[in-house]
Amino acid sequence: MTPRSSRWREYLQLKIDRNKFASAVGLNFVNLQPGVIEAELDMKEMLEQQNGYLHGGVTSAVCDMVAGYAAYSMVEEGQQVFTVESKVSYYNPGISDKFYAKGWVDKAGKRFHFCESEIYYLKGDEKVTIAKSTTTMAVIEAGVIKDKHDK
Amino acid sequence: MTPRSSRWREYLQLKIDRNKFASAVGLNFVNLQPGVIEAELDMKEMLEQQNGYLHGGVTSAVCDMVAGYAAYSMVEEGQQVFTVESKVSYYNPGISDKFYAKGWVDKAGKRFHFCESEIYYLKGDEKVTIAKSTTTMAVIEAGVIKDKHDK
Amino acid sequence: MTPRSSRWREYLQLKIDRNKFASAVGLNFVNLQPGVIEAELDMKEMLEQQNGYLHGGVTSAVCDMVAGYAAYSMVEEGQQVFTVESKVSYYNPGISDKFYAKGWVDKAGKRFHFCESEIYYLKGDEKVTIAKSTTTMAVIEAGVIKDKHDK
Amino acid sequence: MTPRSSRWREYLQLKIDRNKFASAVGLNFVNLQPGVIEAELDMKEMLEQQNGYLHGGVTSAVCDMVAGYAAYSMVEEGQQVFTVESKVSYYNPGISDKFYAKGWVDKAGKRFHFCESEIYYLKGDEKVTIAKSTTTMAVIEAGVIKDKHDK
Repeated sequence: MTPRSSRWREYLQLKIDRNKFASAVGLNFVNLQPGVIEAELDMKEMLEQQNGYLHGGVTSAVCDMVAGYAAYSMVEEGQQVFTVESKVSYYNPGISDKFYAKGWVDKAGKRFHFCESEIYYLKGDEKVTIAKSTTTMAVIEAGVIKDKHDK
Repeated sequence: MTPRSSRWREYLQLKIDRNKFASAVGLNFVNLQPGVIEAELDMKEMLEQQNGYLHGGVTSAVCDMVAGYAAYSMVEEGQQVFTVESKVSYYNPGISDKFYAKGWVDKAGKRFHFCESEIYYLKGDEKVTIAKSTTTMAVIEAGVIKDKHDK
Repeated sequence: MTPRSSRWREYLQLKIDRNKFASAVGLNFVNLQPGVIEAELDMKEMLEQQNGYLHGGVTSAVCDMVAGYAAYSMVEEGQQVFTVESKVSYYNPGISDKFYAKGWVDKAGKRFHFCESEIYYLKGDEKVTIAKSTTTMAVIEAGVIKDKHDK
Repeated sequence: MTPRSSRWREYLQLKIDRNKFASAVGLNFVNLQPGVIEAELDMKEMLEQQNGYLHGGVTSAVCDMVAGYAAYSMVEEGQQVFTVESKVSYYNPGISDKFYAKGWVDKAGKRFHFCESEIYYLKGDEKVTIAKSTTTMAVIEAGVIKDKHDK
């Protein structure tokens, strides 16, 4: 996709750096492109649900982050992105030491972006999908919603 | 609602105790009833998104937990609950020191429960809804899906 | 709810009158209030799915209409409403001669309204829910999207 | 995909033939494969919403039908398919004389199939997506849910 700002990468990176929850979970962003974000997640005990698998809430949070940053890669500088709604479908239990996530803008608009994402692990050469999401991301003009970090 | 097991509370508590992510986030379950779960969450830095508000991924994870445990309160002992899919709508930014969450079984079935949840904060006497979710929870017979904790 | 136009009822009625699909299906709007719409539907053969019940597609269409007109009751004159996305959960098969639908604005905003709806039938005194929906409705300024009926 | 019944095509066709709403709307099934269904729809006045475009309720009904029959192509003979829930995202207004729909099983399971669908029109060589859906379809054993047509 064609980015809407020449400084899209710096602006996106600023937003990622301010995200405390991504670092608390240990989500590592490995590829940033306009409209497409890839990330990796190492399994750890704090991410377990009651069966010892990756918690569905972590799964949905990761989906939200890669989709949300995909949206942030496709806005003008200063614009903000907020999740309007998101649906996650859970295909398989998350039983692995390492997970891969990908989020992308499926249709970029003026008021909102339709985004999608998926999270999966590798079983030998096979890709096992844990979850897929579809998300509506609102694109908000600078200054409409205040940012705790802004002066 | 009428529980399906006389030991529903012990079974539910066992599932809650095994959930590492709930304690990592700091979600505190304050009321457990058959079909209805209430929890509280104190804001902390690790739960922030890029604007300094409660992260949408945390919001969706909390919705998943209170809805999931509401479902777990309405199964037979030994049955397991898995999230099939969940949709979360984000009504307002999560700007508060403390959040309240409630999850409930809206329609209990044999194969799956339709659950709902909401998360909100208090602004004086006013309840400000951050998000609402609708979730399909599958009810699976004991032994069908292995549990890392089972021998 | 407090309407945003003194002529909300006329504007809403105009939109309903132009809806060919509502009359093709036989959906009858019986109560129009700001933010809340009620309608009734008599079962007929053209609305059957393969088992002879109310077709799920009709159910979702009815949910979309009552939610959409609830949104239309809460806009300024000239503004248009478009469905961004909608999720419908199917609680029970639609086995009845008559169905009742209700749609409402759960949270009214500037850019979009979060709406909900339900469709049910009566079994004696009992209300049997067929489906519930949650929908994001975009509120668009007059003139942004052209209307086939406009000159 | 590998069908689960050697008579999948006859069983699927029987279900399609019994669907009164598909023929009322004028949905024409043009390609039936195991796990993938394609259909076409000619625009007509009864399918219009208030702006004269394809009604969103028709769009969601068409998504439900192609996804549902994709699921029906991947069950054993006698099993029934019911929509548990469906989310539809609306990408573009449906402004055309002819629409194309495709539904597919994205992940086939024992208890339910995760299905997806899309509906689009052609603008010269360009494919314009009107809507995309993700749907959970329950697979139910024969005899569990009664069929008006069964003796």
